[in-house]
Amino acid sequence: MQEGRRRSRRDKGGAHRPPAPKGGKPYWRQWKNPFRCLEVLSEDHVEAIHEASLTVLSEIGIRVLSDPARALYAEAGADVDDDMMVRLDPALVMEKVGLAPSSVTLQARNPACNATMGGNNVVIGTVGGPPFYSDLDGGRRDGSFRDFENFCKLAQTFNVIHVMGTGTEPQDIPINVRHMHTARSLVTLTEKPGFIFFRGTQAVADSYEIFRIAHGLSEEEFRDTPVCYSVANSNSPLQLDGLMCRGIIDAAVAGQAMVLTPFTLAGAMAPVTLAGALTQQNAEALAGICLAQIARAGAPVVYGSFTSNVDMRSGSPAFGTPEYTKAAFASGQLARRYNLPLRSSAPTASNCVDAQAAYETQMSLWGAIMGGANFVLHGAGWLEGGLTASAEKFIVDIEMLQMMAEVLQPLVVDDDTIGLDAMRDVGPGGHFFGTPHTIARFEDAFYTPLVSDWRNFETWRDTGSVDATRRANRIFKETIMAFEAPPIDPGRVEEIDAFVARRTEEGGADIER
Amino acid sequence: MQEGRRRSRRDKGGAHRPPAPKGGKPYWRQWKNPFRCLEVLSEDHVEAIHEASLTVLSEIGIRVLSDPARALYAEAGADVDDDMMVRLDPALVMEKVGLAPSSVTLQARNPACNATMGGNNVVIGTVGGPPFYSDLDGGRRDGSFRDFENFCKLAQTFNVIHVMGTGTEPQDIPINVRHMHTARSLVTLTEKPGFIFFRGTQAVADSYEIFRIAHGLSEEEFRDTPVCYSVANSNSPLQLDGLMCRGIIDAAVAGQAMVLTPFTLAGAMAPVTLAGALTQQNAEALAGICLAQIARAGAPVVYGSFTSNVDMRSGSPAFGTPEYTKAAFASGQLARRYNLPLRSSAPTASNCVDAQAAYETQMSLWGAIMGGANFVLHGAGWLEGGLTASAEKFIVDIEMLQMMAEVLQPLVVDDDTIGLDAMRDVGPGGHFFGTPHTIARFEDAFYTPLVSDWRNFETWRDTGSVDATRRANRIFKETIMAFEAPPIDPGRVEEIDAFVARRTEEGGADIER
Repeated sequence: MQEGRRRSRRDKGGAHRPPAPKGGKPYWRQWKNPFRCLEVLSEDHVEAIHEASLTVLSEIGIRVLSDPARALYAEAGADVDDDMMVRLDPALVMEKVGLAPSSVTLQARNPACNATMGGNNVVIGTVGGPPFYSDLDGGRRDGSFRDFENFCKLAQTFNVIHVMGTGTEPQDIPINVRHMHTARSLVTLTEKPGFIFFRGTQAVADSYEIFRIAHGLSEEEFRDTPVCYSVANSNSPLQLDGLMCRGIIDAAVAGQAMVLTPFTLAGAMAPVTLAGALTQQNAEALAGICLAQIARAGAPVVYGSFTSNVDMRSGSPAFGTPEYTKAAFASGQLARRYNLPLRSSAPTASNCVDAQAAYETQMSLWGAIMGGANFVLHGAGWLEGGLTASAEKFIVDIEMLQMMAEVLQPLVVDDDTIGLDAMRDVGPGGHFFGTPHTIARFEDAFYTPLVSDWRNFETWRDTGSVDATRRANRIFKETIMAFEAPPIDPGRVEEIDAFVARRTEEGGADIER
Repeated sequence: MQEGRRRSRRDKGGAHRPPAPKGGKPYWRQWKNPFRCLEVLSEDHVEAIHEASLTVLSEIGIRVLSDPARALYAEAGADVDDDMMVRLDPALVMEKVGLAPSSVTLQARNPACNATMGGNNVVIGTVGGPPFYSDLDGGRRDGSFRDFENFCKLAQTFNVIHVMGTGTEPQDIPINVRHMHTARSLVTLTEKPGFIFFRGTQAVADSYEIFRIAHGLSEEEFRDTPVCYSVANSNSPLQLDGLMCRGIIDAAVAGQAMVLTPFTLAGAMAPVTLAGALTQQNAEALAGICLAQIARAGAPVVYGSFTSNVDMRSGSPAFGTPEYTKAAFASGQLARRYNLPLRSSAPTASNCVDAQAAYETQMSLWGAIMGGANFVLHGAGWLEGGLTASAEKFIVDIEMLQMMAEVLQPLVVDDDTIGLDAMRDVGPGGHFFGTPHTIARFEDAFYTPLVSDWRNFETWRDTGSVDATRRANRIFKETIMAFEAPPIDPGRVEEIDAFVARRTEEGGADIER
């Protein structure tokens, strides 16, 4: 036989697959990465970037646009000048970074959904941040509360999503109370850890209070129990704004998790060279981690990597590029240098859910997973460089995540799986389909896809030539229709609603963005 | 700053990028894989599969539907029974496999295009075998000679394609002379090594003769100079048909390269368990390699892996599945166990060039590259489980291959790339775009995409919302229009034409398929 003739053995049609079980395999709730991470840096190169980062922090310094943050840095022994520049001695940096835990576990309302970031554990989060939302039915538009809640429902449904991001920004809710409505939806529509924005101390406190009530924790218990997380991006290059500094301090004091992610786009906010962008990323991440540890020793922090490059012709940010993937591998080596959990992402710059969206996201995802990321943020739903949260992209990403979850499952080798007896029974030229060895494993032998259509061309064509994006649209709507909220103590919901009502009456929070 | 606000730094439009340079970077002609391969098997598991494969070959045996092949096996000491079963002693298998070279170099008409399969070298081939062809303009139809020649032109143009597969089957050329017309196009439209089908000794000899003339080799020189390659698929399970056996012997005697690829679809032609399918793949590959080495010690062979799974509900073959990816990693471990070059592929089961086509191909490609494949066949143009060669898929695959070629490039770390001075000059909150450090690297800092559109949503929408597949269609047509055939000695073309004319007059070849 020859490859050109393999079609002769192909099926002649094939029944339409029944839908995959809702949410997928229970073991997808916990990812363990069994692989030795891919490395692009020699040990010497890791040390060179480490040393250069410490030189950046001690000689150039970082501008800190926050009085309380500068006071904390100064109190810890940093050099703070009149130009708001903070310079950190290498020994001080390493002492403070050494206080950070190597692993962060976010408690979920359902303990089966607890999410550990550290070691070989991998946690997947949904997209967060986009002001726009899109689906095939209505096109691209401002994100709404309904869209936000739909992303909560998707996050709750699929087992490969471990924590909720922000989905999309519900622009139809007034900004002064928006954080409370999103937090309420997060804790009632999902039983998984969730994200809160750093939008000022009042808003952060409101959000924490809603999570605290939902989890039934005392204020003291809450401070030692991370149940949610935030992201602080430095204003690259080498600057931390007031809002982020306050958030870092607030989260540290509250004992809640935070990801310190420099936004180091090579060629724009960072050197055009990857080694330079990584050096700057490392310096900025360590500076933020230091602030958190100064505010409270042992504060749960994650080393955030987001280094990518711009299109040098237009200045547009690009994602899922070869440079992005290599930076993800390198970031893993740096985070492990400090024994810190690593955050990466799965972004794309594509403007629609096409082949580009899929291949760029794959490049990002392989970079994250094989680089040793412990937290993959923007793992589902990210489109258009992060400006849009897409319903169909979310579903396509779920398929890609489920496939990756299966790649991480062990390949079992024993007498039973080698199956010499099955080969003896079937013999040369036979077929394994009906053998006891096959029948015993029929149901669970292989990954059952969510979106992929494996039927032959004629059947696919005769049923409408529906492509992956349109299939994803259907799956999105079916998933939302079938959603059932997870159980929650009604007393806690009442308490949350009373809190939201009171704080709304008080005028909500003063929001900065 | 916070991730939800990063849009504020985004470009407001961006010029349309000029097309990428034709063919891409010269260094894409030679891929070196710098990574430590990903492994899914422990050393013990590799040995268990190895031992089980030898047990298959010595106890169950393989059915060989070829008198001359059985005679060769018997002469070498194998046990051959009346039922055409050949049983190979483990010591005999290992002795013969040990004769195979660890590396195969295919000479090209242009020495800059020589393709080495072995060590950390990676060679990419186009799709081969599909009877159908498709593009957006004409839809799916029988492959034609024009389509075949177009694939030759694409293969010649892009530096990430190192050897030509068969493209699509030119069904408008009579079968008895088709092999001569395809070989002639291969050697005149490309200067890269090419594929020939095993379709009987006459057709193989005709094809070899055309390659020999094109390369200006004597018959003796030709026998020691691999310039083309073929693929022999076993009729899994455990069977080698007459056509493949003849091809293996013909290629070995002619000193031309061959890939021994079992077609072990788990759950159909192989056990439903990956360990079982890999054991059977290994047994069948080793049996074919033994036959080649018996026919001529040192014959240039490649260990072929193609283990995937079927959809257990419909029987359809699936590609780019998690099982496929893990089998690719495991196959690398097995090939390295025997110090043999490894062939893998980049297939998908999708019926159109959509997100599924991209993510399944990415899963296959990462499996191949990070599994340590030395030859990635079906690297560009494969669609629909291999039944169709697609113009747009070819271009999208080129983009994915170019991105992977860049991932394999070293990340340079030195004082210059770390760029501390650039960070000092720019300072906190500044911008790197206009710095000397950036300007000096402006042109070559990052990968320039072929298909990807990184412009912002508004610009993309206002210029027609063209998705990746439609962009690929345009690039395909532009590439064909711009094609210039590489130089070739006109005397050799005359000699080839005279040969084709004579053999056509003689009736061409008796073709078996």
